[in-house]
Amino acid sequence: MDKILIINGPNLNLLGTRQTDIYGTETMDICLQSLKHEYPAIVIDYFQSNHEGCIIDRLHESGFDSSYIGIVLNAGAFTHTSLAIADAISSIKLPVVEVHISNIFSREKIRRTSLISPVCKGIISGFGLYSYSLAINSLLNKKH
Amino acid sequence: MDKILIINGPNLNLLGTRQTDIYGTETMDICLQSLKHEYPAIVIDYFQSNHEGCIIDRLHESGFDSSYIGIVLNAGAFTHTSLAIADAISSIKLPVVEVHISNIFSREKIRRTSLISPVCKGIISGFGLYSYSLAINSLLNKKH
Amino acid sequence: MDKILIINGPNLNLLGTRQTDIYGTETMDICLQSLKHEYPAIVIDYFQSNHEGCIIDRLHESGFDSSYIGIVLNAGAFTHTSLAIADAISSIKLPVVEVHISNIFSREKIRRTSLISPVCKGIISGFGLYSYSLAINSLLNKKH
Amino acid sequence: MDKILIINGPNLNLLGTRQTDIYGTETMDICLQSLKHEYPAIVIDYFQSNHEGCIIDRLHESGFDSSYIGIVLNAGAFTHTSLAIADAISSIKLPVVEVHISNIFSREKIRRTSLISPVCKGIISGFGLYSYSLAINSLLNKKH
Amino acid sequence: MDKILIINGPNLNLLGTRQTDIYGTETMDICLQSLKHEYPAIVIDYFQSNHEGCIIDRLHESGFDSSYIGIVLNAGAFTHTSLAIADAISSIKLPVVEVHISNIFSREKIRRTSLISPVCKGIISGFGLYSYSLAINSLLNKKH
Amino acid sequence: MDKILIINGPNLNLLGTRQTDIYGTETMDICLQSLKHEYPAIVIDYFQSNHEGCIIDRLHESGFDSSYIGIVLNAGAFTHTSLAIADAISSIKLPVVEVHISNIFSREKIRRTSLISPVCKGIISGFGLYSYSLAINSLLNKKH
Amino acid sequence: MDKILIINGPNLNLLGTRQTDIYGTETMDICLQSLKHEYPAIVIDYFQSNHEGCIIDRLHESGFDSSYIGIVLNAGAFTHTSLAIADAISSIKLPVVEVHISNIFSREKIRRTSLISPVCKGIISGFGLYSYSLAINSLLNKKH
Amino acid sequence: MDKILIINGPNLNLLGTRQTDIYGTETMDICLQSLKHEYPAIVIDYFQSNHEGCIIDRLHESGFDSSYIGIVLNAGAFTHTSLAIADAISSIKLPVVEVHISNIFSREKIRRTSLISPVCKGIISGFGLYSYSLAINSLLNKKH
Amino acid sequence: MDKILIINGPNLNLLGTRQTDIYGTETMDICLQSLKHEYPAIVIDYFQSNHEGCIIDRLHESGFDSSYIGIVLNAGAFTHTSLAIADAISSIKLPVVEVHISNIFSREKIRRTSLISPVCKGIISGFGLYSYSLAINSLLNKKH
Amino acid sequence: MDKILIINGPNLNLLGTRQTDIYGTETMDICLQSLKHEYPAIVIDYFQSNHEGCIIDRLHESGFDSSYIGIVLNAGAFTHTSLAIADAISSIKLPVVEVHISNIFSREKIRRTSLISPVCKGIISGFGLYSYSLAINSLLNKKH
Amino acid sequence: MDKILIINGPNLNLLGTRQTDIYGTETMDICLQSLKHEYPAIVIDYFQSNHEGCIIDRLHESGFDSSYIGIVLNAGAFTHTSLAIADAISSIKLPVVEVHISNIFSREKIRRTSLISPVCKGIISGFGLYSYSLAINSLLNKKH
Amino acid sequence: MDKILIINGPNLNLLGTRQTDIYGTETMDICLQSLKHEYPAIVIDYFQSNHEGCIIDRLHESGFDSSYIGIVLNAGAFTHTSLAIADAISSIKLPVVEVHISNIFSREKIRRTSLISPVCKGIISGFGLYSYSLAINSLLNKKH
Repeated sequence: MDKILIINGPNLNLLGTRQTDIYGTETMDICLQSLKHEYPAIVIDYFQSNHEGCIIDRLHESGFDSSYIGIVLNAGAFTHTSLAIADAISSIKLPVVEVHISNIFSREKIRRTSLISPVCKGIISGFGLYSYSLAINSLLNKKH
Repeated sequence: MDKILIINGPNLNLLGTRQTDIYGTETMDICLQSLKHEYPAIVIDYFQSNHEGCIIDRLHESGFDSSYIGIVLNAGAFTHTSLAIADAISSIKLPVVEVHISNIFSREKIRRTSLISPVCKGIISGFGLYSYSLAINSLLNKKH
Repeated sequence: MDKILIINGPNLNLLGTRQTDIYGTETMDICLQSLKHEYPAIVIDYFQSNHEGCIIDRLHESGFDSSYIGIVLNAGAFTHTSLAIADAISSIKLPVVEVHISNIFSREKIRRTSLISPVCKGIISGFGLYSYSLAINSLLNKKH
Repeated sequence: MDKILIINGPNLNLLGTRQTDIYGTETMDICLQSLKHEYPAIVIDYFQSNHEGCIIDRLHESGFDSSYIGIVLNAGAFTHTSLAIADAISSIKLPVVEVHISNIFSREKIRRTSLISPVCKGIISGFGLYSYSLAINSLLNKKH
Repeated sequence: MDKILIINGPNLNLLGTRQTDIYGTETMDICLQSLKHEYPAIVIDYFQSNHEGCIIDRLHESGFDSSYIGIVLNAGAFTHTSLAIADAISSIKLPVVEVHISNIFSREKIRRTSLISPVCKGIISGFGLYSYSLAINSLLNKKH
Repeated sequence: MDKILIINGPNLNLLGTRQTDIYGTETMDICLQSLKHEYPAIVIDYFQSNHEGCIIDRLHESGFDSSYIGIVLNAGAFTHTSLAIADAISSIKLPVVEVHISNIFSREKIRRTSLISPVCKGIISGFGLYSYSLAINSLLNKKH
Repeated sequence: MDKILIINGPNLNLLGTRQTDIYGTETMDICLQSLKHEYPAIVIDYFQSNHEGCIIDRLHESGFDSSYIGIVLNAGAFTHTSLAIADAISSIKLPVVEVHISNIFSREKIRRTSLISPVCKGIISGFGLYSYSLAINSLLNKKH
Repeated sequence: MDKILIINGPNLNLLGTRQTDIYGTETMDICLQSLKHEYPAIVIDYFQSNHEGCIIDRLHESGFDSSYIGIVLNAGAFTHTSLAIADAISSIKLPVVEVHISNIFSREKIRRTSLISPVCKGIISGFGLYSYSLAINSLLNKKH
Repeated sequence: MDKILIINGPNLNLLGTRQTDIYGTETMDICLQSLKHEYPAIVIDYFQSNHEGCIIDRLHESGFDSSYIGIVLNAGAFTHTSLAIADAISSIKLPVVEVHISNIFSREKIRRTSLISPVCKGIISGFGLYSYSLAINSLLNKKH
Repeated sequence: MDKILIINGPNLNLLGTRQTDIYGTETMDICLQSLKHEYPAIVIDYFQSNHEGCIIDRLHESGFDSSYIGIVLNAGAFTHTSLAIADAISSIKLPVVEVHISNIFSREKIRRTSLISPVCKGIISGFGLYSYSLAINSLLNKKH
Repeated sequence: MDKILIINGPNLNLLGTRQTDIYGTETMDICLQSLKHEYPAIVIDYFQSNHEGCIIDRLHESGFDSSYIGIVLNAGAFTHTSLAIADAISSIKLPVVEVHISNIFSREKIRRTSLISPVCKGIISGFGLYSYSLAINSLLNKKH
Repeated sequence: MDKILIINGPNLNLLGTRQTDIYGTETMDICLQSLKHEYPAIVIDYFQSNHEGCIIDRLHESGFDSSYIGIVLNAGAFTHTSLAIADAISSIKLPVVEVHISNIFSREKIRRTSLISPVCKGIISGFGLYSYSLAINSLLNKKH
């Protein structure tokens, strides 16, 4: 069975409790359940870390594993500060789709520049937790 | 039957012939056919213009029409120069999803800033013509 | 009888419905009626367009017509992006007064720079629809 | 009888002698006389100072005095350098209208940014000494 | 007989009357006559518009027509603001030569950056109406 | 008995009435009373002015007076515009502690740069009127 | 007994040995001892890490724990580069006070901008290790 | 007998005590004595103020007085922040020579831009108190 | 017989061997021969130097010599760095036409700004070695 | 026997597989073997991590150990984003030599600024894996 | 007898003929004669070159020669572009005084920044050819 | 026997006497002797000039001479201002290694950007005169 890896960056473990006016009250657990329900034909692996290094390690580990179709990455604040994650994306073989829950372009200035966008396959931003579903959709389409 | 409006901006009438290394060889006609096939339950209206004013006029015309679920907008080069289209989006009632065929963030500097992103519902960029499908998908989900 | 031409730019056809927290609920029709009532001794012509080219065409058409005292121009978003309108103003003979309904200097950064101010006679910004009245007043005074 | 306060900033005491190519040859005395003639139903108080602190003091003194309808402020060069005057305007109750004799937007770069515009009711610039008349007009209209 | 298309942008219909200190008193009609006289062996088509969209439409229409040797484009103020025209130039097959009547590099800052230069064959600026002749000359040479 | 001088800059005379959402409703008088109560072993002198020059004069007057332990300075808007006050601080012998009632770093851009910070002993910002108490505390600690 | 958490960022484990001209020769151990002595009525927890991720983890762990009054954070160099720590501060419930040993505003340019200041309660900078005492003081005062 | 006016700006009353590594230990009194000794044929008037407004007032007072040959102005920190003083210089008839004791171009960035240089006759910077002598010399030469 | 002077700047002696993807394989010798053939009625003088000073000297030497119609200058890299050559052009009497072999506006950023354009008669860029012919053509036209 | 420590930053564990057009196909293992062969008289320790914190920890651990001559650091992407590593280098006693495999100055803009260069002994960039050999060479020379 | 060296940079050999509205009609020969007349007790050597390298060579040659009191340098356009001349000034022993005939601060932007000011003794700008006399005067004073 | 060419730019003829705190007291002569001693198997040619044009001439002369392995270039201040030298490096066949005696990245801002780095093989900066030895070493390695 094909697999997809979702990687969430810093502070996204607090989803559902943190800044609910921006990110909503749904937790990632519930989101993952509905994604699994929506895409029964694929395995969805999930990894979250507040450590830039751990995200890079995980990208290296899975990024050459052909049992994955691709990676969905919400790098959180690292989106705007981590050139090292961008380099990791360039270094691996799997396509990476960048997602954001909120529309980062309608927020403060520092959030309007992404260091990882140029090396990702594409970007999906602003559709709440449904952004993850669209990203998986895009990777499945890629395959065919 | 619910409707969705796709608006394409300048030079997108040349899709399939123009800069095929960036935009591919598929024409918009073929794209529209496959979208209609993919989403049989909705009516997909299509409008293309090289005239900023015509795009604004059309946004005004359809933007208060509740038979539409929402608008998918690929504003082409106007994305980066037209504050007037951004104002039109702010002025209407329907949600607008911004799409791009290429990943605009991996292109030249002027294409990395979108004037319309802050007032759109969300942005989808980099998935070729499949970006339109994802955008329709996102609007349908919005409804439920 | 002396004439004055009011030109309104993009999205101003939606006045009274659009972003009423910024622009108020009064429509341009009502505004024009009260202007005509306030200045019975002059003819007030009105032109609105969402098309930059049409605004330039109209400036050319009327800008050498000595039956007009002057032009009141609310260029909307074109204020900040259209060097071509600025050139048209420089090219014609009639004085042009720039008006804005809201105080553009208390809004987002892109609205704080006007490309047309340097070539206008003067600027009036922030007095709601009464800005138009002040602009006409200023042109009448100019004449004497 | 309703009152309006006109405050003039640095170097405006030299009006009529100073840089007459920009500011004209009419003195402020003559301007005040014609304003009083034009608006016989209101009392027009006048204050000029080259001292930023004195202008702030005066704004504090009169800014809570409900016998005034509002304040007309030509802050001269302080327009572009005094955040303290901007803060004073924010601190008081009366509306303040910013005026300039010349069109500041057609002058050198430093004069194109006003620190006080964002906290004023509106701005009127470029109509010679008639700018004061338009400003009073705008405040009277405000009242009704 | 080979053809060349000359496209003139906004406000250039006023040539000879507008800002004659910068653009001279010769009209485009007279210029076209002398060009036809100078190059009797080619057909010179002429198109002028104040509408960005019309210029794009015309570039699309003629840009794939092999009866033309090339296009001479004086985009006027659109030179500095229209990424959409630049995209149209990239999209067509014919070479485009950018011309300016005045030396745009000795004028105000906004006129020193051209969005279309990077996608044109070459640029000719500062030789009055003779710039058009040099541009045609360059296209003829291109052919051999 | 040791003394400390508190200097407040422009508009701080309106504390308690002005922009109470930012600065609170407590007046400086009440603040001074509670400071005197909190620090009975020292004399607290207080000076407020809306005049940059008066603040410089006072810094000169007291800045070499060894009966003072140090100066607590809330320069208000002058914080961001007065290099002359910064020079006065560099010129005197007493240490100066910069205080702000609000957190200036969470406000608009112009308030995030302080010209006087580089020449002050330290900065305390964001603790309401308690900032003054912390500043006095810091100066007392300095002494031992 | 109420608790306060002190978090120190990268390189602060070397305090007392590292760059003693800037940071002094006192170690954090001695500082903690004197703080405990100065504030006997509260428990002071201490955490230091050179890992951005560990600091975020700890902010999450303690940031919702109501047995703490607040957090004192000296983020060291992360102050200027970690948007992820800023997001963590925004996400938790406890107030965070930013402290610096040196006056960061009198140092090199990159140290004059703090990414975390806008989301902290307040900032205290420049008082040597006594900055920690002032920060605790400010949190205690907050409580009453 | 011809007269020259020397105006000194903020903090220059402390000359000889303040920042002696930059400004030296000689006081202005001694400097004035030696100037009078060096130029016995002219009257040297002296004015110092820490108040921007007082400097403007004095420029107005003396600036039209033909018994003066010219004005020597060391505006201190106001050099870099006071557009109002620059306007005063433009407004008066006498030539003004800008002087600085230190070489302002070898100091921190904010001191390398002078708002008043463009409207002064000339600038003399870096020769210690002898700069004043050179400035007087330059004005005397002007006369012949 | 009328004369024209062609001046080539640094590295243009290597034309035909150097970076042939940008500059082509034709040498300057061959170019000069074909120019002489194309314009038999004028004398074409040629000067090349890698020394900025020698170019300035030559501009001075020939720039007042009325046997020349004008100067064609390809200043190579000095185009972007030599204000001294720009000053030399301003100082002489003959018109100077700036040419470039490549389209400098489609190259790296530093090559998009020319210090000499503002003081040249006009600019011709992007037509390969034919740029020289167009420049001569423009000077001949100038004469009539 | 003297020792040297080589520290490699993020993504350098993929050397030989990752972006081989930029970094070549040689792995770090082979590089280390040839370095040991080239410098038989010294012990070469090697540490690689994708975690900024681990690199700082290691710099602290080894940075005061006098059995090392110095440290060779290729910080990868952290070169451009980690002020904390720069601070760690400033804090330790051993000299650090910055190396890069590629010539970082011929790559994209963000890679042309190094935060660590100012605090390193020197920088060697662009010699492929031989950069490490040159760095060791430089440290050995330092010793004598 | 003491000596002073005057060095003039590019295009200053044309003084008196070149841009006489800016530089006047007096030639350098006449200026040198009047300087020699004004300062009979010193030898004035003069050197002019349009070659940056020659100016550096001359600074090296004379810059360690103790028979000179100092050097007066008008570097012309090199003032704004030559870091190499600045380095030469730093390298030699004699003091260098920077002079300009015009007031460079009232001219175009590129002329408002001098690369050599930071390493010169002082700067004198705007007094016509009398600037040279003031510079010599300043060097003579230096000696006593 | 293989040859290497060392080119030194402006002011480097003063090495050993000039700014010895930055560049040390060793002269280039002594450096060349020790290089010849260190690399007996190669011929080391040396060229120094303060003239940008002479350096370009020499690069052209030797840059196609296959008896050289490569060129070591310390362009001094021209590093930061000479695009023409950069173009010369691009034009020749031999590899060029950029060296600096000091660590240019820890110096003033203008010295942190090198125009020639992007076209050099690599850069070595900060190792005193030993930088030359490392550069030769790198070129020898290149050969094998």
